[in-house]
Amino acid sequence: MKRFALIGAAGYIAPRHMKAIKETDNELVAIHDIADSVGIIDSYFPNAKYFQEFERFERYVDKMRRGGTPIDYLSICTPNYLHDVHIRFALQNDMIAICEKPLVVSPWNLSILKEMDGLAGGKVFSIVQSRLHPSIEELKKKMVHEHGVCDVTLTYITTRGDWYLYSWKGNEKKSGGLVYNIGIHLFDILSWVFGRAKENVVHVYEPRRAAGYLQLEKANVKWYLSINQGDLPNTDSRMRRSMIVNGEDIDFTTGFEDLHTQSYQNILGGGGYRPSDVEEGIRIAYDIKQSKPSGVRGTVHPLLKQ
Amino acid sequence: MKRFALIGAAGYIAPRHMKAIKETDNELVAIHDIADSVGIIDSYFPNAKYFQEFERFERYVDKMRRGGTPIDYLSICTPNYLHDVHIRFALQNDMIAICEKPLVVSPWNLSILKEMDGLAGGKVFSIVQSRLHPSIEELKKKMVHEHGVCDVTLTYITTRGDWYLYSWKGNEKKSGGLVYNIGIHLFDILSWVFGRAKENVVHVYEPRRAAGYLQLEKANVKWYLSINQGDLPNTDSRMRRSMIVNGEDIDFTTGFEDLHTQSYQNILGGGGYRPSDVEEGIRIAYDIKQSKPSGVRGTVHPLLKQ
Amino acid sequence: MKRFALIGAAGYIAPRHMKAIKETDNELVAIHDIADSVGIIDSYFPNAKYFQEFERFERYVDKMRRGGTPIDYLSICTPNYLHDVHIRFALQNDMIAICEKPLVVSPWNLSILKEMDGLAGGKVFSIVQSRLHPSIEELKKKMVHEHGVCDVTLTYITTRGDWYLYSWKGNEKKSGGLVYNIGIHLFDILSWVFGRAKENVVHVYEPRRAAGYLQLEKANVKWYLSINQGDLPNTDSRMRRSMIVNGEDIDFTTGFEDLHTQSYQNILGGGGYRPSDVEEGIRIAYDIKQSKPSGVRGTVHPLLKQ
Amino acid sequence: MKRFALIGAAGYIAPRHMKAIKETDNELVAIHDIADSVGIIDSYFPNAKYFQEFERFERYVDKMRRGGTPIDYLSICTPNYLHDVHIRFALQNDMIAICEKPLVVSPWNLSILKEMDGLAGGKVFSIVQSRLHPSIEELKKKMVHEHGVCDVTLTYITTRGDWYLYSWKGNEKKSGGLVYNIGIHLFDILSWVFGRAKENVVHVYEPRRAAGYLQLEKANVKWYLSINQGDLPNTDSRMRRSMIVNGEDIDFTTGFEDLHTQSYQNILGGGGYRPSDVEEGIRIAYDIKQSKPSGVRGTVHPLLKQ
Repeated sequence: MKRFALIGAAGYIAPRHMKAIKETDNELVAIHDIADSVGIIDSYFPNAKYFQEFERFERYVDKMRRGGTPIDYLSICTPNYLHDVHIRFALQNDMIAICEKPLVVSPWNLSILKEMDGLAGGKVFSIVQSRLHPSIEELKKKMVHEHGVCDVTLTYITTRGDWYLYSWKGNEKKSGGLVYNIGIHLFDILSWVFGRAKENVVHVYEPRRAAGYLQLEKANVKWYLSINQGDLPNTDSRMRRSMIVNGEDIDFTTGFEDLHTQSYQNILGGGGYRPSDVEEGIRIAYDIKQSKPSGVRGTVHPLLKQ
Repeated sequence: MKRFALIGAAGYIAPRHMKAIKETDNELVAIHDIADSVGIIDSYFPNAKYFQEFERFERYVDKMRRGGTPIDYLSICTPNYLHDVHIRFALQNDMIAICEKPLVVSPWNLSILKEMDGLAGGKVFSIVQSRLHPSIEELKKKMVHEHGVCDVTLTYITTRGDWYLYSWKGNEKKSGGLVYNIGIHLFDILSWVFGRAKENVVHVYEPRRAAGYLQLEKANVKWYLSINQGDLPNTDSRMRRSMIVNGEDIDFTTGFEDLHTQSYQNILGGGGYRPSDVEEGIRIAYDIKQSKPSGVRGTVHPLLKQ
Repeated sequence: MKRFALIGAAGYIAPRHMKAIKETDNELVAIHDIADSVGIIDSYFPNAKYFQEFERFERYVDKMRRGGTPIDYLSICTPNYLHDVHIRFALQNDMIAICEKPLVVSPWNLSILKEMDGLAGGKVFSIVQSRLHPSIEELKKKMVHEHGVCDVTLTYITTRGDWYLYSWKGNEKKSGGLVYNIGIHLFDILSWVFGRAKENVVHVYEPRRAAGYLQLEKANVKWYLSINQGDLPNTDSRMRRSMIVNGEDIDFTTGFEDLHTQSYQNILGGGGYRPSDVEEGIRIAYDIKQSKPSGVRGTVHPLLKQ
Repeated sequence: MKRFALIGAAGYIAPRHMKAIKETDNELVAIHDIADSVGIIDSYFPNAKYFQEFERFERYVDKMRRGGTPIDYLSICTPNYLHDVHIRFALQNDMIAICEKPLVVSPWNLSILKEMDGLAGGKVFSIVQSRLHPSIEELKKKMVHEHGVCDVTLTYITTRGDWYLYSWKGNEKKSGGLVYNIGIHLFDILSWVFGRAKENVVHVYEPRRAAGYLQLEKANVKWYLSINQGDLPNTDSRMRRSMIVNGEDIDFTTGFEDLHTQSYQNILGGGGYRPSDVEEGIRIAYDIKQSKPSGVRGTVHPLLKQ
C-alpha cells in the first residue's frame, strides 16, 4: 500500500483522484487546499489530515519523511500555472508526482520538468485520461497500420456557465485559457494518434470557443472547441465529443468516469505518461494561444460556417 | 418568478439552495464566493453571474436594483459568523434574506436581527429544515396534547474527518463550534417541540463531541452529539439521529434531502421562520458554549457511561 | 471632534489620512485592511480598533451607529475599483465618505455616485490634493483672467519599480492603469485649470508610460506621463513634475506632503470636492484608456522625440 | 556582490533587511509577499522583481539557479510559524537563509533546523540583533569575568495598539504570542549573557503582558514584558528597555536602528548566529508559553506589585 498526499483538494477534479487512490487500494494521508470546502474527503479518506496553508502541508510532508513514514506520491490538482512548482515540490520531498493535465502552460517549463524527470529516473506523471478511452485506444491501434493521411473533423463541446471566465480557468495567465483547460484533451489525443503537428492554423480564438485547422503527420484536422450551450443541438445536452475520421463517426461523449482510476493503475504498474510523452499536445496548445486568428477562411470546421 | 442571489456558493450546503430555487421555479441570477470552485452552478443555473469578490457582487446587486430589475431574495450560505452581516447586506439592498442555520453565533447579534426584521416587516428567514422532517413534525403535533414532562434521550452522531477541525467549522470564533454547526439542529428541534430551557447542564464539551442534560418545559433531555466515527456501531455507517421519547424510538437519520426545497416553499408561500422563531435554540447553544463542563456525573446520556 | 473609520489601512497612502485626521484634531476609531501590516497606526491612533475582515468591520460600524456613538466619516484608501462600493458602504451607514483619487475607474459608476451624493445632500468627497498645491492654485487664479488658449507642456515622471506592474496598480481592471493611478492628478489639474476636453489624442499608451495631446477650452497640452527611471536625467532623482505654460516653467515636484491635511480641513470646513467636481478628469483618463494610440506623430511631447 | 531574495517584503521588519543588503553592498533581486503593499522597495532596490504568489517566486528562484545566476541568500521576514518552512525552501534551492527571530515557535522544529544546518555546513542564520547592542555586548564581556550569580531586574515595554492582537502576532498558533514576538529578545539576551535556565517561574501570562522569575546559571532575573501604554510613565514615551544588574541600570531603549546591518556584516563575514546558538532563548520562551502562571507571588518584578 502506497501513501499519497493530494494538493488542490477542494476543486472539481480532486474527487476523481481520491476515488482512484481508494480503488487502487492505497491510502491518502494528507490533503491541502487554500479553500476549506474539502468535506468530500470524508467519502474516501476521513482520516486524511487537512492543511489549509501550503507551508503547514510542507512541514507535515517533511516530517513524515524524516520520521520514517514517507509519503510516496503527490497527486496534483491545482490550477495549471502551479503544476510545475508543485511537481518540483514533490521531487524535492522524494515523492512521485501524478499531475493533472496540462502539465504546464509554457513549454519552457516543460523542458525543466523533462530534465528533472530524467534525473529522478521517472517520477513525473501526467494524467491524460482521454488516451485511455476505449474509442480512442481503438483508433490509436488502427492508425498503426494506416499509412495515408486521414481526414478528421473534431467537435469538442462541453458547456460551462458564466462563472468559468471569472474563475482561474478564465484567466489566461493562470490556466492558459480554453485551449489548455479543455482543449488539451483534444490536442493530446490528436498528436498521440496522428503524430506531430506540421501546420497549425487558428480560425477563431475567443474566451469561450476556438477553432482551427491542424495538419498532423497522419491527419488533416478541422477542430472546433466550445463551452457555449448554443453550440449544442438542445438545452438538455451538456456535452458532445466526436471525431469523424475518414467519414466514420467516433463518439466519445461518455465513458470518462473511471479513467482516472485506470490512469493510476497504469502509473502504479510501471506505465503512465511522463513529460516527454505529453509534450506535443502542449506545444500545439501553446502555438494556438500565440497565434493570430485568421478569421473564418480556408478549410474550416462545419460549425464555423453556420 | 422571483430573482435570487446566493452568497457562499462553493460550500457544502449551497447546492441544496440552488436545488430549492430551481424546484420552486425561481431563478438564481448571481452567486458569490471567494473560492472559485463553483462549477456546481452549471447543474442548476448556468447563466448565473459569478463574482469572486464581495465588492463586485455588491455592485451588481446595486446596479440591478437601480436598473429596475432588482434581486428579490438573497440566499446566505456563508460561515456562521458572517450571517448577520450578510443579512444586513440583504436588507440594505431591499432583498429578503434566507439564511442558513444558525442565524448568528452570539445572541446579541440576534437581537439586532430581530429589530431589523421587525422594522422591515418580516424579511429575515432562517433555514431550520429539521423542523420539517416528518418524524419531527409528527412529534411536534403530538406534544400539543401532552401535558406531562417527557423523558428524552437524544443521540446525534454525524461523522466528520480530520479536516473539520481545521476548516472554519472547527474555529469557535467563526462557527461557534460543534454545538452550533451541527448541534443547532438538535437544540432547535428540542426547544421547538418541548419549550424553553429551564436548566442546562453540560457534561462534556470537546471539539468533536459534547453531551449534557437539558431541562425544558416539557422534557428532560439527555443529549449526546458527536462527529466521531468511533461513536457509531460500525465503520460503514456515517450517521445516526435518534430521539427516544418516553421509551419510543424516533429515528430521523434519513429524510433530510428535500427539506431545503420545502423550507423555500414555506418562505415563498408566506410562512417560514423568522429570527424570533429560532431564538431559543441559539440561546441554548450559546449557554452550552459558555458553560464549564461538569464531567460525567449526574443524569448522563448512556453513551457517556461506556 | 469627529469620529473616523478608515478602510485600506495597510497601503501606501493611508498614513497621510491618519496624519490628516490627527492634525485636524479628530479621532480614528476603527481601521480595516485584509493585510495585517497595520502597525503604522500606532504612530497616530494606537487605540483604533483593527479588523482584518470587512464583515467584522461592518458589524462594528453598525454597532456603533445603533449604540449611539456613530462614526461620522469613512476614509477610503482601497484599490481604485473598490472605491464606489466603499462609498456606498459609507452612505448606507450614515457616514460621510472621503475617498482617495480616482473616485472611480468607469464613468458610469461615477454617475451613480453623483446621484447618491445628491440624494444624501453632499456626503461624498474626493481627495484631489494636487489642486491645493500652491503653484497650481496660483495658476488657477491667473487663468481666470486669461482669455486666450495657452500652450502647455506637461511632464509628470514619478518612478516605480518592477513591483508596480504586479501589484493591483498594474492590473487595469483593478486600478484603471497608469493614467488613473498617477495620471489622474495630471488630468484633474488640467481640466480644473483649463476647462473641458475638446480633443484627446493618445500617442503612446504603455503599462509604464503614456503620452498624448489634449485640447482643452483654454489650453493645448502636450503631456508625458511615466514611471520609468530612464526618463529622468539621473538615477538620483526619483520624480519630476513640471508644467510649461506659455513658456513659463511651473515646477511642482515637491510640496505634496501636507496637502492631505489641507484637503481634510477643507472638507471638514464645508468645502471639498464632490463627485461632479472631479468628473472631467476621470472622463479624460477613461477616454485615453479606451483610445487606440496613434504612435509618435502630430503634436507630440518633446520627450517622445528622443 | 551577493544576490539576495527576500520573503515577507510588506511587513514591518523588511525595510531593515533591505537597508542591510544595501549597506553591505549587495543586491536584492527578488521579493515575495502575499500583500502587494511593497512600494518601500523602491527606496532600496527598484529593480527587484516582485512576486505576489509563493509559487511564482519559487519558479523564479529555481530558474535563476538553473540559468547560472543563482540567488545566494534568502532573507526571511515572514510570520514566525512559517520560518522553518522558508528556511527549508532556502536550503533546497541552495540559498543561505538569514531569518528573523524567533527562528521557530516549537523547539522540535528547531531540532530539524539544527540537523539541516549541520548537514549543509552552516547555512542557517538567525537575526538576534539585540546581542549586538553596545550595552549588551559590554555586559556580555563583563560577565566572562563574573563568577557569582547576579541579581537582575529586566523591564521590557514596547507599546502596541489594538491591532496587535488581531494580526498574526496576536495569534499564538502563528506567532507563539508575546513571549516570542517581543519577549524573544529578552530571553535570548539573558541566556546569551547569563547562561542556561535552571528555573523558570511564570507569574503572569496575558496576551499583552507577561512576567516571571528566571534562574539562570549566572543570574536570578525578575522580568516584566508588556505592550501596554499604561506601563510607561507617560503617554509620550513608547518604549522602555532596561536591565538592572546588581544595582547598575543598563538602558538599551535606543540604538537598535543599525543592528540589522551589523548582523548582515557578521554573517557575510563568516560569523553570525546559527540555530544551535539561539536554542536556549527559544526553549525559555517555549517553557513560559507552556507554563501555568502562578499569579503574583514569590520573587516578583517591581511593576507587578503596583
